[in-house]
Amino acid sequence: MKTLPLALLSLGLLVAANSQANQTTTDKNHKVAISLANTAAQSSLAYELVESLTVEVGPRLAGSDQDKVAVDWAMAKLKSLGFERVYKEPVTVPVWHRGIAKANIVSPYPQPMVITALGGSIATPKGGITAEVARFDSLDALKAAPEGSLKGKIAFIDAKTERHRDGAGYGKTSSGRSKGAVAAAEKGAVAIIIRSIGTDTDRMAHTGMMRYQDGVEPIPAAAVSNPDADMINAMLKRTDKVSLHLELGSERRGEATSYNVIAEVSGSSKADEIVLIGAHLDSWDEGTGAIDDGAGVAIVTAAAKHILDLPAKPQRTVRVVLYAAEEVGLIGGKTYAKAHEAELAKHYIAAESDFGAGRIYQIDWNVAPRAHADAVKLMHAAEQLGVSSGNNQASGGPDVSMLPALGVPVASLRQDGSDYFDYHHTPNDTLDKIDPAALAQNVAVYAQFAWMMANSELELRPLAPKPQAQ
Amino acid sequence: MKTLPLALLSLGLLVAANSQANQTTTDKNHKVAISLANTAAQSSLAYELVESLTVEVGPRLAGSDQDKVAVDWAMAKLKSLGFERVYKEPVTVPVWHRGIAKANIVSPYPQPMVITALGGSIATPKGGITAEVARFDSLDALKAAPEGSLKGKIAFIDAKTERHRDGAGYGKTSSGRSKGAVAAAEKGAVAIIIRSIGTDTDRMAHTGMMRYQDGVEPIPAAAVSNPDADMINAMLKRTDKVSLHLELGSERRGEATSYNVIAEVSGSSKADEIVLIGAHLDSWDEGTGAIDDGAGVAIVTAAAKHILDLPAKPQRTVRVVLYAAEEVGLIGGKTYAKAHEAELAKHYIAAESDFGAGRIYQIDWNVAPRAHADAVKLMHAAEQLGVSSGNNQASGGPDVSMLPALGVPVASLRQDGSDYFDYHHTPNDTLDKIDPAALAQNVAVYAQFAWMMANSELELRPLAPKPQAQ
Repeated sequence: MKTLPLALLSLGLLVAANSQANQTTTDKNHKVAISLANTAAQSSLAYELVESLTVEVGPRLAGSDQDKVAVDWAMAKLKSLGFERVYKEPVTVPVWHRGIAKANIVSPYPQPMVITALGGSIATPKGGITAEVARFDSLDALKAAPEGSLKGKIAFIDAKTERHRDGAGYGKTSSGRSKGAVAAAEKGAVAIIIRSIGTDTDRMAHTGMMRYQDGVEPIPAAAVSNPDADMINAMLKRTDKVSLHLELGSERRGEATSYNVIAEVSGSSKADEIVLIGAHLDSWDEGTGAIDDGAGVAIVTAAAKHILDLPAKPQRTVRVVLYAAEEVGLIGGKTYAKAHEAELAKHYIAAESDFGAGRIYQIDWNVAPRAHADAVKLMHAAEQLGVSSGNNQASGGPDVSMLPALGVPVASLRQDGSDYFDYHHTPNDTLDKIDPAALAQNVAVYAQFAWMMANSELELRPLAPKPQAQ
Repeated sequence: MKTLPLALLSLGLLVAANSQANQTTTDKNHKVAISLANTAAQSSLAYELVESLTVEVGPRLAGSDQDKVAVDWAMAKLKSLGFERVYKEPVTVPVWHRGIAKANIVSPYPQPMVITALGGSIATPKGGITAEVARFDSLDALKAAPEGSLKGKIAFIDAKTERHRDGAGYGKTSSGRSKGAVAAAEKGAVAIIIRSIGTDTDRMAHTGMMRYQDGVEPIPAAAVSNPDADMINAMLKRTDKVSLHLELGSERRGEATSYNVIAEVSGSSKADEIVLIGAHLDSWDEGTGAIDDGAGVAIVTAAAKHILDLPAKPQRTVRVVLYAAEEVGLIGGKTYAKAHEAELAKHYIAAESDFGAGRIYQIDWNVAPRAHADAVKLMHAAEQLGVSSGNNQASGGPDVSMLPALGVPVASLRQDGSDYFDYHHTPNDTLDKIDPAALAQNVAVYAQFAWMMANSELELRPLAPKPQAQ
């Protein structure tokens, strides 16, 4: 072995010393991460938060009166928890009113049905529509129908949503909800119904956003419960001609101002850099928004509060963002990205909790490929919480999903969503569906994540070009 | 040992010969019972029947138009199955129309609620009632309230129904539903709501019959879903004063004629003696009456059909009775008992299937105490189906529960009802809740029961005085 030149040698020593110092810091932070998990396990804060939100506010559809109540609730709650900066930023949201939603099978065997209007749908003509059903296995099958073949009919997309821990079934069927009305109208349909995008067999229909398209006639759109979809199928086995009566009183009522509500734990040495942990404050209107997304609001708020209560400050600022109007088109997320455009370069990493309250089992990342392994290592305290390391293709969650394209690293703290789509977007989204212990585990992992990221020495940029969203 | 006198000796030989002949007959019948179980296991008849009833008729509230459709369905179906006698007997039933049922919490935190009118309830005044809630743990607690203390209030009975295999939880809470309105009105209440008599946490309210009493002001009565009851409690933790708005559009509309529908497999040597297996044809109006009591209709019909298809006739007549109007007060059962008063002495035994489609795990009896052990022995083929022997205090099922007092032996073929009260009397009572294999096991046990009873040599009377109903 040759002797190294002095300059290189001293550089080597310096790197070693730095590395040792970093190791010590990392060890310290790891200890803090463990203590945060203990704090979270012993705290009922998150459960109290989601209880408070569901009881004192309840349903809070973007642009509704209750949405305003939710914003006031969030501002007051975050202030009362002692966060250093609590503020809100305006978001322009569409206003949609559900109105009545009624349907029944007219023939061959008259039966009432359980339905719900899809979010954004127009109304039927007063008195409703009666028409024959044209059933399709999927959105693709509907798109393949001959031109004009649905003239005067009610299209019916009858795709079952599979149960998966990661919610993969939803991705396969939800396009039928969002895009079905356009596809059906293009073939001449007068309305569309879909089998609920849900894994349950409850007699409850799952709502959710749908879209129209300029140049294509808007038609009323609704979901039927899974048992009602079964019923239509049972009748279609007996006859080709099943007729439905459908009446929706839904109404679009222009726009309103809602708010992204933001709270911060100020950083110390790198206060201008942001670790963003978010959730959405709005909910659909038929449940109380417990799992979607009261749980997320509670998780990220409690995680930040546990960091706020530490003796030492994080180096970076931990920013809690409670987004407006996620359900109706990620509007709070998009508005945030635009309003904070100049600051995005200072966003170290972002993550949103929006998948209920099931335990986190894996962290996926979207960071510079060379930093991925180190990021995984940094989070190894979470292994004790049952969290394993995942891929580097995360979206980060709906309201931060537009940030990677703008250069911002993200992480997806993946929750067990095995039963999420049993309740999602139904009246059944209520507090009792949340397991307090699982909720606390989420808080622990988010607190560890935010703490370790706020103190990380890793360079997480640049992201791989065109990361594959998941 | 002394020699026996000749007369006694020949009597002894005769008894032995008879006993041997009986044993041979019993063995034969036991073999038939085994073959009936095999037939039931291989047959999809029961599932087809309940599928047909739920799809082609659906909800069939006593006295409604659909109730007439159900009677026609039953007559046609029983005839098509080839039963020897198919007939119907008129039953006068009350007509009640549900109408709208809306409620919301007015203060301290406005929230919509999920409710259902209790069967038989009157309407609220048009525009509804707004009043403060007075909460009680139980019907007994409500009855203990001071006179006049509920003046102008809405009473709220908040008793949780426990989950038990035998449905014992229902017995503890259902009196709050049936008797709560009278008890509340006696204390001055303007309306009553109850926590749903259900073991689920779904956002669905459970309906069911309630009663008024001459001389006590009738008040509107509704059930709230379990999550909504939790919500009221959460608000009562925050304030003493929770106000609700309640609007019911229910209406009593006099009386109508419905029918008990009856089919028979004629007996051979004892054709005038009856083994009655029953179920009720009516259902509540919000589900499709799959578990309550489409399953029972399917079970007893399929069981009798399998007996009809045997090469040999049963000695006694097997009579299938599909009762009218069970839900609204066992009216079909009472009418049958009266109409067949003269024939009741010829009713060898009766049993009703009205507890869903869960597997039968036990047979309870109400027969002459000295015959109990022999009756148990006769049914030992059912052990292979997982059925054990039970007590001698059975009620036999709702529509035959009045028969023991009239001297008729009964049996209760006890089904696993662990999840029965998750769906009972809700929109969720739909076909998908039935497990075809469990349904087939029920058919097997009922077929064995009907066959063994139709050919039994046991004397099942007289019953023990005042049997304790279960």
